[in-house]
Amino acid sequence: MALNRIVVLVGGVGGAKLAHGLAQILEPERLTIIVNTGDDFWHYGLRVCPDLDTVLYTLSGLVDPVNGWGIAGDTAHMLEALRRYGEEGWFRLGDRDLATHLLRTMWLRQGRTLTQVMDELRARLGVPQRLLPMTDAEVATVVDTVEHGELEFQTYFVRYRWQPVATAIRYRGLEGASVSEDVARAIGEADAILFGPSNPWLSIAPILSVPGMRELLLARDVPRVALSPIIEGNAVKGPAAKLMAELGYEPSAAAVARYYGDLINGYVFDERDAGLNIPVARATTFDTLMKTQADRARLAGQMLDWINSWGRNESLGDHPG
Amino acid sequence: MALNRIVVLVGGVGGAKLAHGLAQILEPERLTIIVNTGDDFWHYGLRVCPDLDTVLYTLSGLVDPVNGWGIAGDTAHMLEALRRYGEEGWFRLGDRDLATHLLRTMWLRQGRTLTQVMDELRARLGVPQRLLPMTDAEVATVVDTVEHGELEFQTYFVRYRWQPVATAIRYRGLEGASVSEDVARAIGEADAILFGPSNPWLSIAPILSVPGMRELLLARDVPRVALSPIIEGNAVKGPAAKLMAELGYEPSAAAVARYYGDLINGYVFDERDAGLNIPVARATTFDTLMKTQADRARLAGQMLDWINSWGRNESLGDHPG
Repeated sequence: MALNRIVVLVGGVGGAKLAHGLAQILEPERLTIIVNTGDDFWHYGLRVCPDLDTVLYTLSGLVDPVNGWGIAGDTAHMLEALRRYGEEGWFRLGDRDLATHLLRTMWLRQGRTLTQVMDELRARLGVPQRLLPMTDAEVATVVDTVEHGELEFQTYFVRYRWQPVATAIRYRGLEGASVSEDVARAIGEADAILFGPSNPWLSIAPILSVPGMRELLLARDVPRVALSPIIEGNAVKGPAAKLMAELGYEPSAAAVARYYGDLINGYVFDERDAGLNIPVARATTFDTLMKTQADRARLAGQMLDWINSWGRNESLGDHPG
Repeated sequence: MALNRIVVLVGGVGGAKLAHGLAQILEPERLTIIVNTGDDFWHYGLRVCPDLDTVLYTLSGLVDPVNGWGIAGDTAHMLEALRRYGEEGWFRLGDRDLATHLLRTMWLRQGRTLTQVMDELRARLGVPQRLLPMTDAEVATVVDTVEHGELEFQTYFVRYRWQPVATAIRYRGLEGASVSEDVARAIGEADAILFGPSNPWLSIAPILSVPGMRELLLARDVPRVALSPIIEGNAVKGPAAKLMAELGYEPSAAAVARYYGDLINGYVFDERDAGLNIPVARATTFDTLMKTQADRARLAGQMLDWINSWGRNESLGDHPG
């Protein structure tokens, strides 16, 4: 099997790490990164796209290596000044980060699509890989919670630090959303489709919720392989395990595989979970913790080598359901 | 003559100093500052109002004491990041300053008037004096130049550092502009109207160009007193003297008085220019250089005392103009 073109679906920090691993080992034109935009929101008149920017900053080398998001060495002087005006300033808008939001907002208001805007931004930062928003429409993840009822995603995630108990996750704006031409072409031409180790409900599910997206993915008889974000029942970062428990799932790599169901025909999970029974036709374990930049390239290489080892000319459409 | 309510017309740094002097000696409700908005422009999707902000920062004590504009200790990290995206970044947008532009732009987009926006901003910074834009419409000063033809004001002033030779100054957008209710009321209730030591052509003329403004001023039979921005043929700051020469005026305090003509019935100019023949009914000299905060209060007090000394119940409408 020749894996020429690779598509990877990602959310924020974890997905950006896998994308960066792939970027390190693939010629740029072979890699397309499709990014969740359900976290995007309007804040102080700016269109803020946290996951797209995390991937952008990671691939351009600007990213804050400690947080995994934002720009290294960024300051928050604008935010301090906002607070002097009596604003709460609960969402971190770094001063350097603001340049991205300002350019994006200006170009969007001029009528460019988010796809065009991100393509311009990544090109200007010298990122050669394609970085595609899951859709050009404004789709918003909403979390229903026990304590506060319905919360906008960033209110849930940042303001309340994902501490409220979630009862449901919904995606608003889907009725006007569609898969962009660029995303449809990338999926249509992919020789393998990877699901990053991002939060399935908060990062991957919004991508899958775009009308037409599931059908496009299911129509591709190529490896569709997810990387588990859960290791030994815990999320490497963020609320994935907590959310799974609240939504009635057992927090485990196996439950994530079951959640993806027939969307995937291959699964990679952590070697620490080797004993788990994974309900996917092809599954394997690696050390999936990406602590260093080298770890990212190593894991990306292991995943592609493993997928390359699958039988040639074998239909991949079957799965144990 | 009882000078209860004072209105002062101002542009940027020089006018802000006089406004600050008045603010130091008058109860807040007695002072209204009407500010030029001809310098305002859209920049990276933000509505930037340099003169209003200079007055706002001066009265709130936030102002950079060296430049006389911007916020003390501000940084330019956003601007650096814009440059990393390949943008020229010729207009200084300080990081702390950005909070002002973001709040203003957001509120304007929500449908508030600039008057309402500035009233909210000054109140939040604890500035008790009224700070009124000359109009709520978007009026733009345009400079015709020998070298570059027509230039937007900030392009002329900041990008080209007012070095091109001006052949004319025009104000765009006047056809849709009108004096706001608040400005009309302030002028109507004023017991004295002062013209700040701002550039007559770039800062005061745009205010005077708003349809109805001249008539409102001329209708008031109260002291209307200008403070000269020219001392010994030079501008204290900025291009006033250079512009006067280019536009065919002799750069002098007398020429400024002639320019204001029948709009003023009193004139204050610098004691260094005591020998000048000033064509205004009432004229006097003081040390008009405002180097310290105390200088501002001292000069403001001298001006008001002098105006107070004018004859009671005497019509001020006459002038030698």
